[in-house]
Amino acid sequence: MLTNTTRRRIEWGDCDPAGIVFNPNFFSYFDHSTALLYEAAGWPKARMLADFGIAGCPLVATKANFRRPCRFGDDVEITSRILDVRTSSFDVGHTLTLAGEICVEGEETRVWTETDPEGRLKSRPVPDAVRERFLA
Amino acid sequence: MLTNTTRRRIEWGDCDPAGIVFNPNFFSYFDHSTALLYEAAGWPKARMLADFGIAGCPLVATKANFRRPCRFGDDVEITSRILDVRTSSFDVGHTLTLAGEICVEGEETRVWTETDPEGRLKSRPVPDAVRERFLA
Amino acid sequence: MLTNTTRRRIEWGDCDPAGIVFNPNFFSYFDHSTALLYEAAGWPKARMLADFGIAGCPLVATKANFRRPCRFGDDVEITSRILDVRTSSFDVGHTLTLAGEICVEGEETRVWTETDPEGRLKSRPVPDAVRERFLA
Amino acid sequence: MLTNTTRRRIEWGDCDPAGIVFNPNFFSYFDHSTALLYEAAGWPKARMLADFGIAGCPLVATKANFRRPCRFGDDVEITSRILDVRTSSFDVGHTLTLAGEICVEGEETRVWTETDPEGRLKSRPVPDAVRERFLA
Repeated sequence: MLTNTTRRRIEWGDCDPAGIVFNPNFFSYFDHSTALLYEAAGWPKARMLADFGIAGCPLVATKANFRRPCRFGDDVEITSRILDVRTSSFDVGHTLTLAGEICVEGEETRVWTETDPEGRLKSRPVPDAVRERFLA
Repeated sequence: MLTNTTRRRIEWGDCDPAGIVFNPNFFSYFDHSTALLYEAAGWPKARMLADFGIAGCPLVATKANFRRPCRFGDDVEITSRILDVRTSSFDVGHTLTLAGEICVEGEETRVWTETDPEGRLKSRPVPDAVRERFLA
Repeated sequence: MLTNTTRRRIEWGDCDPAGIVFNPNFFSYFDHSTALLYEAAGWPKARMLADFGIAGCPLVATKANFRRPCRFGDDVEITSRILDVRTSSFDVGHTLTLAGEICVEGEETRVWTETDPEGRLKSRPVPDAVRERFLA
Repeated sequence: MLTNTTRRRIEWGDCDPAGIVFNPNFFSYFDHSTALLYEAAGWPKARMLADFGIAGCPLVATKANFRRPCRFGDDVEITSRILDVRTSSFDVGHTLTLAGEICVEGEETRVWTETDPEGRLKSRPVPDAVRERFLA
């Protein structure tokens, strides 16, 4: 399955008055890490949207476990991988580590989504070319 | 169990290029809705931290299902309720609706947390006064 | 000139490790307060974009003075007013107060903007109907 | 004067329904870029706070000009430099470019700030060691 690892620096503005990452920001990190996974598959997100005429791959479900807090200045590593690809949806797993220790684990279910002529978001089958690279 | 409902307007800056709420922002909404639940229990969050000498109640786990997208200008309603209280942790459930239709359902497990003298975050038993109101 | 006042509660997630509002969030507050000004003029933002076929009114310039910090739980009041309307741009002023004391003052210059057929953002004259209500 | 350049990728979640960076996020970029300037001066922000016993260097004023929009996927470059150092405050200038073209210019006035025994934020003179490196 397709896997990609990225590093990012935790920023001051990502942290809350307890001095640790405000939890929703981990989901922002995961969202960006998924975009980098598309890029590793050959489609930077902007090009993926343009090439396939989709609105994006919005989440239908997500979850996370927070094991250790992260603080501003921490250089964390996020490894994201495709876990499963179904007809029109796929799962992505994320592991965020600091100095080799797991801090957060997350999982997302995303849907391949087009905008129909009435402006409504509709699921569509994941194209074979994408499926192939996701499963590689 | 303690329950509270709040309304909020979806803001332009909460939405992404697909025109819908960027998913991490739902977790921000839930975090604030949990703070309003503390307030409904009798402790506005700042006072809760001061009165009990805690750093906060950070998440150890969360999950959400996204059923319908929300867009800027939507006036949504979030109902939050205590689902369970254990020795030093508790669960909060959230249901976000638009015009009576469920858009997002979420669940959080939070830990009653102090900062020890070395500056580390440590779980502590939920005080009886809090437990009582959470279970009311 | 068109004026509108709104109240908002400072949220935990809006604040940084110093315990005060992370400064970029004041610009988010102002952005939303400007959207409420459009609404006070008769066009909730989504309808304004649809009715006039515009992409929005992005900023070309902004500035702010921060006089007193705000903290989570603070119930602040934001008064926004149109300061000037030119051919295709207009200025909005914002004053954020807590218990009557000014905390932040801001000013924005925004441009009435359409997306041209090539997908580029282009300034356009502010329609007379809008100008009239802004200047009311 | 101390100068530092950093690169960052514009993320999907940084952008709004018009498909461009939501303007408050540029101030987040600048805030982080200022933190990297402290680091270039020899003090990663967490260490700067610990070494000097300060709460941070909050803004008293900021402004920005937005010349060209940025979109998700853009790899931008931010050059930050100390513009002036006074007794207890200093100015930082930021220039954000995309492929060599200026997109945003910003300026911040920040105050060297301690927390007094009553928990209030108080300005303090910028230490000589810091001033020296800022002016280098």
